[in-house]
Amino acid sequence: MSSQSDSCFPVTIETIRQAAVRLAPVVVKTPLLESPYLNEIAGRRVLVKAEVLQRTGSFKFRGAWSAISALDEQTRARGVIAYSSGNHAQGIAHAASLHGIPATVIMPADSPAMKLSNTQVLGATVVTYDRAGGESREAVGEALAEKHGLTLIRPYDEPMVIAGQGTCGLEIAEQAAAVGVEEADVMVCCGGGGLSAGMAIALDAVAKGLRVRPVEPTNADDTCRSLLKGERVANVGNPDSICDAIVTPTPGELTFPVLQALAGAGISVSDEQVLNAMKLAMLRLKLVVEPGGAVALAAALDSSQSHGDAVVCVVTGGNVDIQLLTQALGVVSTDAALG
Amino acid sequence: MSSQSDSCFPVTIETIRQAAVRLAPVVVKTPLLESPYLNEIAGRRVLVKAEVLQRTGSFKFRGAWSAISALDEQTRARGVIAYSSGNHAQGIAHAASLHGIPATVIMPADSPAMKLSNTQVLGATVVTYDRAGGESREAVGEALAEKHGLTLIRPYDEPMVIAGQGTCGLEIAEQAAAVGVEEADVMVCCGGGGLSAGMAIALDAVAKGLRVRPVEPTNADDTCRSLLKGERVANVGNPDSICDAIVTPTPGELTFPVLQALAGAGISVSDEQVLNAMKLAMLRLKLVVEPGGAVALAAALDSSQSHGDAVVCVVTGGNVDIQLLTQALGVVSTDAALG
Repeated sequence: MSSQSDSCFPVTIETIRQAAVRLAPVVVKTPLLESPYLNEIAGRRVLVKAEVLQRTGSFKFRGAWSAISALDEQTRARGVIAYSSGNHAQGIAHAASLHGIPATVIMPADSPAMKLSNTQVLGATVVTYDRAGGESREAVGEALAEKHGLTLIRPYDEPMVIAGQGTCGLEIAEQAAAVGVEEADVMVCCGGGGLSAGMAIALDAVAKGLRVRPVEPTNADDTCRSLLKGERVANVGNPDSICDAIVTPTPGELTFPVLQALAGAGISVSDEQVLNAMKLAMLRLKLVVEPGGAVALAAALDSSQSHGDAVVCVVTGGNVDIQLLTQALGVVSTDAALG
Repeated sequence: MSSQSDSCFPVTIETIRQAAVRLAPVVVKTPLLESPYLNEIAGRRVLVKAEVLQRTGSFKFRGAWSAISALDEQTRARGVIAYSSGNHAQGIAHAASLHGIPATVIMPADSPAMKLSNTQVLGATVVTYDRAGGESREAVGEALAEKHGLTLIRPYDEPMVIAGQGTCGLEIAEQAAAVGVEEADVMVCCGGGGLSAGMAIALDAVAKGLRVRPVEPTNADDTCRSLLKGERVANVGNPDSICDAIVTPTPGELTFPVLQALAGAGISVSDEQVLNAMKLAMLRLKLVVEPGGAVALAAALDSSQSHGDAVVCVVTGGNVDIQLLTQALGVVSTDAALG
């Protein structure tokens, strides 16, 4: 493992600390929860960082606020733009709205009505493109950005976004120490790797005993395989997973070197483990978690994946539809009392 | 309204502050959450205190810990006893277990298997009695208490329990002020009145602009009617409500005078409002809330029930079964985007 000063890192602990200062007035300092029932299943203490309670229902608000608040005033006033139909878009919309600046979000015209509506309620202008008709979101977005002088904010390969996500690691370090946990694997969901890379840099600097383990769905385990191979490899085809929020083609360019240097081995979990984790989150933690947000909890509950007296995990997002929640409530769980 | 020095109050603000000191090392300082979607429905800011994230899934842990930690060491070492099949029992079981002392919980033999099992996992000895056969829980409990020197901890008519629940009010006062809210109705579910009375004393002392409004299900609105009549009146018959956790025969003896002196008018909400609030809590706040724990949110979302720029509410418990959660997810909600 390399040291903190590794020059290939997109941000330093100082950048993360500065993001934390900018976030302080608005961020929800989400609790680190523990349940005796989950401890029993895992055979060790399970500490769960409840980022589903973050503004907009996911940790993505941290990165969005960090990036927007870091812009110089004149640039920021012109507005920002994002390509996303998911949690990053909601984070950008809300962070821009709180800053009083315009946000444009480019989404496929065939996105679910609720996603379109949510992003609008949060204050963004939604511009749709015709995915089926071959229209490119980049072309639509670049034309708009140029015309209005908008700043594009990428979801993970963006230093200020990575710094914002890293603030979640600073909070965990403090909260875990407060309950006596200083040595543990920290399970983190991994799409492009913004959260896991930001947290890895933060934890390496302030809590050496806490080590990030990236977690992915079994059929979109590009980071797991890339870490094993020592270079970025892509997912094969168009992975079919209920964890759509964290399916990305490859690990990020900026994030992967950080994970190589600082993270432990990747872990992959099945859709069934994810549904079980969603059910246990609802009944034992009282938290609604979306599939992509539940992979880290699924890994934490799998006692073969970690060692020691404790394991930490982040439940990262809760933006899920009724049908999937009902499906999760119907699975047979690993908690015997729940059936 | 009477002043804080009213001699008929079971506890003072000092007692509540002392309870807060005893609770500090173990309590979850639950977040005060806000959602743009809920603000839009209510037509004002809605601040939601997420006590479903408290240890054991409800605020009852506060009162249980407060009462057990206030006992002298010798008395405490002999153990405690409670009559309950619900959240108070779980709070007592877990607080006793963390203190390393025995807890006995008397429950009907025909209680749901999950409630029996949960209370046992939390560390209590469950003793069942034959409700149908006419066995009295008091007789069973008193015999055990006498034999083993156990201390009975009542769910609400118990000063140290009221003091513990009051600590939730201290946290709200601080958290609401931090987000700029100093004048608002504070919707609180009301069964026996332990939480609403404790919070009323706390808020009257530290945040005069925040006023408790007790909330009940329409067909178990004994506190609403008692406040109107100026004396404790009982519910009629055996009220049928999905909010079983907060159905009590009458307001408490110790708690009612506090509500008379310090609380605003009571509010009652229908089962349909409660199911709608449960659905919105899941989809907009990412919180699982049981029916009795959702009445205050239901009242907060009803814009005819309060005035001003903001309303505060406590979602008090999340111990609910799968069938009810599925039922709530199926109701047509007041949030148009959700259907």
